[in-house]
Amino acid sequence: MLGYRSVAMLGYRSAAVRLGVFPLCRFYSAGAVLKGASEGKRAVSGASSASRGPTGVVFMNMGGPSTVEEVHDFLYELFADNDLIPINRRFQPLIAKYIAKFRTPKIEKQYKEIGGGSPIRKWSELQSSRVCAILDEISPETKPHLPYVAFRYARPLTEETYQKMLADGVTRAVALTQYQQFSYSTTGSSINELWRLAKRLDPERSIVWSTIDRWPTNPALIEAFATNITAKLQEFPAEIRDKVVILFSSHSLPMDVVNTGDAYPAEVGATVYHIMKKLNFKNPYRLTWQSQVGPKPWLGAQTAQIAKELSAESRDKVPGICFVPVSFTTDHIETLHEVDIDMIKESPHRDILKRCDSLNGSEILIKGMAEMVRDHLKDGTLFSKQLPLDYVLGKSSDPADLNQLFGDHRKVKK
Amino acid sequence: MLGYRSVAMLGYRSAAVRLGVFPLCRFYSAGAVLKGASEGKRAVSGASSASRGPTGVVFMNMGGPSTVEEVHDFLYELFADNDLIPINRRFQPLIAKYIAKFRTPKIEKQYKEIGGGSPIRKWSELQSSRVCAILDEISPETKPHLPYVAFRYARPLTEETYQKMLADGVTRAVALTQYQQFSYSTTGSSINELWRLAKRLDPERSIVWSTIDRWPTNPALIEAFATNITAKLQEFPAEIRDKVVILFSSHSLPMDVVNTGDAYPAEVGATVYHIMKKLNFKNPYRLTWQSQVGPKPWLGAQTAQIAKELSAESRDKVPGICFVPVSFTTDHIETLHEVDIDMIKESPHRDILKRCDSLNGSEILIKGMAEMVRDHLKDGTLFSKQLPLDYVLGKSSDPADLNQLFGDHRKVKK
Repeated sequence: MLGYRSVAMLGYRSAAVRLGVFPLCRFYSAGAVLKGASEGKRAVSGASSASRGPTGVVFMNMGGPSTVEEVHDFLYELFADNDLIPINRRFQPLIAKYIAKFRTPKIEKQYKEIGGGSPIRKWSELQSSRVCAILDEISPETKPHLPYVAFRYARPLTEETYQKMLADGVTRAVALTQYQQFSYSTTGSSINELWRLAKRLDPERSIVWSTIDRWPTNPALIEAFATNITAKLQEFPAEIRDKVVILFSSHSLPMDVVNTGDAYPAEVGATVYHIMKKLNFKNPYRLTWQSQVGPKPWLGAQTAQIAKELSAESRDKVPGICFVPVSFTTDHIETLHEVDIDMIKESPHRDILKRCDSLNGSEILIKGMAEMVRDHLKDGTLFSKQLPLDYVLGKSSDPADLNQLFGDHRKVKK
Repeated sequence: MLGYRSVAMLGYRSAAVRLGVFPLCRFYSAGAVLKGASEGKRAVSGASSASRGPTGVVFMNMGGPSTVEEVHDFLYELFADNDLIPINRRFQPLIAKYIAKFRTPKIEKQYKEIGGGSPIRKWSELQSSRVCAILDEISPETKPHLPYVAFRYARPLTEETYQKMLADGVTRAVALTQYQQFSYSTTGSSINELWRLAKRLDPERSIVWSTIDRWPTNPALIEAFATNITAKLQEFPAEIRDKVVILFSSHSLPMDVVNTGDAYPAEVGATVYHIMKKLNFKNPYRLTWQSQVGPKPWLGAQTAQIAKELSAESRDKVPGICFVPVSFTTDHIETLHEVDIDMIKESPHRDILKRCDSLNGSEILIKGMAEMVRDHLKDGTLFSKQLPLDYVLGKSSDPADLNQLFGDHRKVKK
């Protein structure tokens, strides 16, 4: 593959188009690329002696199979993740293979029912491209910004993306988690994967990484949710609108993980409270948890159970329910199937149940993410103050060395 | 006992002093008492035809035994509470008697070790008296304000307080929960007890009630916590101060209760996040849960376990821990014994462990509570938008009828 410098020599714009490197991306001139980045307070800018390439903005997420054919591999990757499911590492590949095979038909059926695949890749590519386009405007000193998506369990996998970034000559990258609330089993797992790949694919560390590892109360995130909720509430009759229960639903965690001191439940609580504050607390609301699997105890209350209970109440007490998926930025199987089909379509009370739109193409969110990345690049933070504590408490067989992964590695290595 | 009107005739100030009705209270003139209350937008002010007496400000809490002798009765009341421990009601008194007898020696020993009793009554009386003194200044249209403490399991029990309020001629009362974050098993239990007593002691409803049933992110509460945390962090050496882990600790709940959709865990998460925001997130922090009892699963992670794990880490990673009790406004056995003795004094790492002072006499808190009550009286809210949903989800054998308990009952009854 051609590296960034070769691409630049070929004339960046046309090469990028020709190579199909940025299918959803806007164009920029090679001149802008070569102007390089600022020499601000940022710790990593000490590496100014190295030639400066584009800034990568990497959307990290679990991902989902874009087509039904990808379901098996997705499930295998998921169950093979020792950070997500910390079982005996030696047997994990075998167990993952077995579970993936066993569960594939059921999950394939679900993906068929939502139209043949997860839209998470489509939305992530759109969002990241738009974010980079805005960044080129509002943060010219760090442009060009190249958008990437790095999924943990689906294509494009983190490895594929890392290789593409190396080929594109990226020299600085921001790993922006798409799990707004930090869990060691989600964002932690993505960071650990990045660590393994950095060691293997980029031993000289030509890419200098930093991360936005959580953003549970980012003002744009809160506003985007509040806007979508307000719009959905408009679909309920005016006379009951303020009595509709806003049922926030977040992906649950096994109590095993919660009990390690994982940051996630409290951060989700913070997101929900900030949204309700934005809405002036004008509706009753509750935070519940969905997508529990397996026999072990998980964090509750369960969304499906509470929705069932509430919808069976008198209409005087519960005239309507508005589901709000609060821990993802895009639609996914948990919204399109678990909520829309299992909880709404199949409910005898479906007439009073609605789901708030996922953020997907929300311009409020996209602009907010761009501003967040700009501020992050400007203030030189490499990772949050919380992250080292997450790593003290988290259990992993190969945890990232945060100080090795993030920061000026070229200095460290020399 | 003399009623409020008789007291007023005797000359309120001297009578109040002579009768010892307000041991910690400031004095006010009979004239002010008789001037009556405003005719604002407040729903309850429709009851203007009835003569207007003092406004009661009632601090609701679980309470604690003020002397070692009271331990047995406290434990009995606690285990007899069907809203807290929803077992078979018929056998509950017997079981409560047995458990209380069985546990008394151990708990008596703990109260002896913290100086012979819980300070919760002392602090509650001081806080409520100060709040009422401030209210007389900042809300003259609702004065006089009389302070009361209504404990669920210790003296003064809610019944004793209700009778005193009737004798004092209180005609309007605000039930101000001292559990800032709502749980059906705490504030819900206190409201249900109030409901039972209103029916029994006050069938004509001479007292019109409203409630502040939660205030997890009240700005003064957040500021008071942030102030105390900042002060405690000053006691750590400057070079490690910003790396000290702030370990927020909240009373845990059984997963049975959490799984009903109880509001508490998310509201505690909101409190913690607001405090950290006030502190500019300059330290790592974590929310954990304490005081689990019995064999059933409770919400974790457990404070003691996480503290043990963190304090065993290298001093490079965890140079210090600052415990912050975040779901009470005063000291109690859970701070003075469970944290100070069990977790700190008995730890081999006690040199790096400190506890942030409880709010107790915090003037920031007291002023904030007074302003919160003033605003509540002014805007006419009877209870939060959340409370009816708490009652839809909560399990009680005798739940309060919120619309009967709160509001203008004299109208309802006639």
